[in-house]
Amino acid sequence: MHRYRTHNCGALSLSEAGQTVRLSGWVHRVRDHGGLLFIDLRDHYGLTQIVADPDSPAFGTAETLRSEWVIRVDGTVKERDAEAVNPNLSTGNIEIFARDIEVLSEAKELPLPVFGDLDYPEEVRLKYRFLDLRREKLHNNIVLRTKVVSEMRRQMALSNFTEYSTPILTASSPEGARDFLVPSRIHAGEFYALPQAPQIYKQLLMVSGFDRYFQIAPCFRDEDPRADRLPGEFYQLDLEMSFVTQDDVLATMEPVMRDVMTTFADGKPVTETFRRIPYDEAIRKYGSDKPDLRNPIEMEEVSDHFRDSGFKVFANILASSPKNQVWAIPAKSGGSRAFCDRMNSWAQQQGQPGLGYIFWREEGGVIAGAGPLAKNIGPERTEAIREQLGLGSGDACFFVAGDPKSFASFAGAARDRAGQELGLVDEDRFELCWIVDFPFFEWNEEEKRIEFAHNPFSMPQGGMDALIEAEKGGDEALLGLKAFQYDMVCNGFEIASGGIRNHLPETMVKAFELAGLSKEVVEERFGGLYRAFQYGAPPHGGMAAGVDRVIMLLAGAKNLRDVSLFPMNQQARDLLMGAPAPPTNAQLRELNMRVIPREKD
Amino acid sequence: MHRYRTHNCGALSLSEAGQTVRLSGWVHRVRDHGGLLFIDLRDHYGLTQIVADPDSPAFGTAETLRSEWVIRVDGTVKERDAEAVNPNLSTGNIEIFARDIEVLSEAKELPLPVFGDLDYPEEVRLKYRFLDLRREKLHNNIVLRTKVVSEMRRQMALSNFTEYSTPILTASSPEGARDFLVPSRIHAGEFYALPQAPQIYKQLLMVSGFDRYFQIAPCFRDEDPRADRLPGEFYQLDLEMSFVTQDDVLATMEPVMRDVMTTFADGKPVTETFRRIPYDEAIRKYGSDKPDLRNPIEMEEVSDHFRDSGFKVFANILASSPKNQVWAIPAKSGGSRAFCDRMNSWAQQQGQPGLGYIFWREEGGVIAGAGPLAKNIGPERTEAIREQLGLGSGDACFFVAGDPKSFASFAGAARDRAGQELGLVDEDRFELCWIVDFPFFEWNEEEKRIEFAHNPFSMPQGGMDALIEAEKGGDEALLGLKAFQYDMVCNGFEIASGGIRNHLPETMVKAFELAGLSKEVVEERFGGLYRAFQYGAPPHGGMAAGVDRVIMLLAGAKNLRDVSLFPMNQQARDLLMGAPAPPTNAQLRELNMRVIPREKD
Repeated sequence: MHRYRTHNCGALSLSEAGQTVRLSGWVHRVRDHGGLLFIDLRDHYGLTQIVADPDSPAFGTAETLRSEWVIRVDGTVKERDAEAVNPNLSTGNIEIFARDIEVLSEAKELPLPVFGDLDYPEEVRLKYRFLDLRREKLHNNIVLRTKVVSEMRRQMALSNFTEYSTPILTASSPEGARDFLVPSRIHAGEFYALPQAPQIYKQLLMVSGFDRYFQIAPCFRDEDPRADRLPGEFYQLDLEMSFVTQDDVLATMEPVMRDVMTTFADGKPVTETFRRIPYDEAIRKYGSDKPDLRNPIEMEEVSDHFRDSGFKVFANILASSPKNQVWAIPAKSGGSRAFCDRMNSWAQQQGQPGLGYIFWREEGGVIAGAGPLAKNIGPERTEAIREQLGLGSGDACFFVAGDPKSFASFAGAARDRAGQELGLVDEDRFELCWIVDFPFFEWNEEEKRIEFAHNPFSMPQGGMDALIEAEKGGDEALLGLKAFQYDMVCNGFEIASGGIRNHLPETMVKAFELAGLSKEVVEERFGGLYRAFQYGAPPHGGMAAGVDRVIMLLAGAKNLRDVSLFPMNQQARDLLMGAPAPPTNAQLRELNMRVIPREKD
Repeated sequence: MHRYRTHNCGALSLSEAGQTVRLSGWVHRVRDHGGLLFIDLRDHYGLTQIVADPDSPAFGTAETLRSEWVIRVDGTVKERDAEAVNPNLSTGNIEIFARDIEVLSEAKELPLPVFGDLDYPEEVRLKYRFLDLRREKLHNNIVLRTKVVSEMRRQMALSNFTEYSTPILTASSPEGARDFLVPSRIHAGEFYALPQAPQIYKQLLMVSGFDRYFQIAPCFRDEDPRADRLPGEFYQLDLEMSFVTQDDVLATMEPVMRDVMTTFADGKPVTETFRRIPYDEAIRKYGSDKPDLRNPIEMEEVSDHFRDSGFKVFANILASSPKNQVWAIPAKSGGSRAFCDRMNSWAQQQGQPGLGYIFWREEGGVIAGAGPLAKNIGPERTEAIREQLGLGSGDACFFVAGDPKSFASFAGAARDRAGQELGLVDEDRFELCWIVDFPFFEWNEEEKRIEFAHNPFSMPQGGMDALIEAEKGGDEALLGLKAFQYDMVCNGFEIASGGIRNHLPETMVKAFELAGLSKEVVEERFGGLYRAFQYGAPPHGGMAAGVDRVIMLLAGAKNLRDVSLFPMNQQARDLLMGAPAPPTNAQLRELNMRVIPREKD
């Protein structure tokens, strides 16, 4: 017989009844039923009920057992009495009558119970992560995580991608976030950096003649604490393809991500065919480039109904600039003064002057608009708005006015709010879409200049010709340029992002020039890649999906730490291992470094 | 038709003859045959021959093409003339008559040709790695690498292991080599460390109730340049199992590694069943715990034949200490004075006084020993030695004497040398074995004290009882203790190493105590793990295999850089990306660090 187990704790059923077996695991719970001891024995695979009666030679040991001790049990598999069967357990038809119990490891009093689902403070959970990870929910989340990652690998292989690991000790790259730096001991005063993403290496792979790369890639960003980001490291499903257009990347990754999500969606519907929504349209309809499409509300422009109307606030806004517009946020079933006032108060909490609204009710067989706005613009315009939006009695509509560039994100938040408050959002589904045609440049209001909207690696739509044409047209034309840049969005979260890359050195230099950056900047910041592009670069593109985010959505978790194995806390501390920690003097000396005491802020 | 290709460059055969196709790829080579241009077009998948004749509208462009330009070609698939068929190419039966060629990207003059197999300086190869990676041999090595890693993943999954990713930003752990440190910006003066191996995390995973972990794990060691190690980072196939004995780990991993190697051995035989050789026996027979079993030479002790013999040097050595011995290195077919003298000179180059030998030849139908040693000890003893070792005419034997602890590694080197020089080593096979029963403690001669022989995580054979018993026996008894610690060896290289862990806090503290380290040291160095062991730890064990090393063996490469994608040079510099590099002042300021100018050595 094996030293520790003939079966795991999830394996036994009636077909082993009568057999002598050996199990090992953790004592999940001990119950005393009239002198009979019932032990729930737990391992990674399941739970098996052990019974020790006072006649058993194991009884003496059984009496000493405490929660989370690790034991080995020898005994006989018996069918449970009918009333004792537990249909929720794979082993629920049987129990083990213990003949021998060996304690393999004891446990001190637990700072965090494993049995039960009580909430415990985050700091305790992180310090005793090994206990927290034994708890059912977190354990299952991590198992889900491993399965999702494994399925991602399988799907990528099925799509003829090959996994390559790119370096982790590499060069600092000015890519948005801050790099973690690693001092070199051998080269005094010089530093490596941990990659924020394998962006440059994956493009180098394409230039090196590999064709379909992917990687479950660790990425590192030294950011200030953010609720929606794990401090330190996170994982991307990163990929790149040669000789492709945007359509190829989208057509390749849509089934991969859809199938991965469907596999673990637990029966919830997943979008079959992803809509491709241009960035401008997403802003116009949803006030966001990460729209939650579970929310049926689509905004519409209703400027004409307010132009020269009796509602002077909006009329004046519209008259003051041709850029200004009025947008409507239709809210079906929101047609009560109470709800509209609640939304108005919420808007004021968000720092807005308020949120204009109209709501419709039936009065003597006629649908009529109510509220101050309706009064101001009169019944005809009110009815025209209702007709445009397809609203009826019991519905409401909110309005925002001004330059859409300024109000769009607030309008999007109001759309979210209305949808949630009214229960219009079907939580139990995964709604996916593509956002495409992102702007290539954007306006930096602070520095009053044009800059790259996303990253400088994307190809402008139309290529070099479009850049030259737009240059002639000035800022307005430049800001109208679109990039081959796309996001995949699920339930209001950006879960992947990518682009077709600019693989032509001249076009790269021109794009940088238009963003006010010289060729020298290209060479300095992206030296390796720029050099590579001079020696025969294939057209290429790809994307990267946020592994942690996808798993969080699938697990229905509220926190990235609940889908991560050994996360740091929000202050970027690993409470289990005690990192970061002060170095020894010898370590600092070897690195030729000195720590400067921090000045008081 | 797709923008870039209907087929890749390895796809077309006679079955597409007559079709109009589109290919994209790199211009591998252009040849002019009497006005007809032949272009070898290359991509990741293969090579296709393009023909442009002067009548083709593509001819004008074809004439301008240079090596490594990236082009798109439209044309018609034609069967090659019988004499032009290339059986070494998957597309060797066809060629494409070009109708249209588009240049997708040009290439400057190449610092390193892609076509051909000329050797180029390492520095050029690393700086232009993207060109080197296009070269056939390196490209194939990297493809092999991805396949081996993927097969490792597949085999581990088949063996019911699950892949978990452990943190990369973690705590410094005093584990032999030097850590790479990462300064924390948020916590001034404190540092993270990159893991030398996921050792502690994988053990924490077992304590967290997961059962069969594996990971293709990036590991980081800040070591001084070593020819047999990649500077910076390397990969391990890392694994751990709960509720297992040493036999379980060996029985699980032997088929995995054997099958992985067999799959990529290119027909070379791979050991079917691995011998399990105790450490002491390995030293005795091979002078090494990493024996190359392709070398048939096995050493034997022959002390008795020299005791009180006429060869005073050895006789005196034997008389001076009961620890001293004489070992024989039998060398079949080495029986010539020239060879024996060559071995003797080699030994002197190694800093040895020389290498005693006897060789045997037939003299008038009788086999007689020759050489100075044979003369000194006389024919009877010479004959007894020959008989013990089973040698005959034309064979030789070399002798080393002294304390085996001191001479064993030299004896092992002499065995290697003799085997290689005599062509006894069959290069075209993979000979695998296990080395087991490593010593638990070893003697630190410099500090005159007992210390852990490998790592402090292993379980001593016999557990706590054995530790207590050995303590009573003193240093000799302690040094005789064995650990549940094992290596997997292939062709003279350690390719994997592991152990059954010490999961009991008391036994851990006792072991440290015997190595002269206090409980406080345990707590300080292994705080997270030691804490975890107090709360119910399962018996567990595992191992880690060197991914880079295994691939190097399979690829027949001489250098780890030839099986790595973007390696640093031996001075730990990434010449492609330019790392490490000086930080900006802003970066240093944010990290609260100052660089101290290095003092002249």
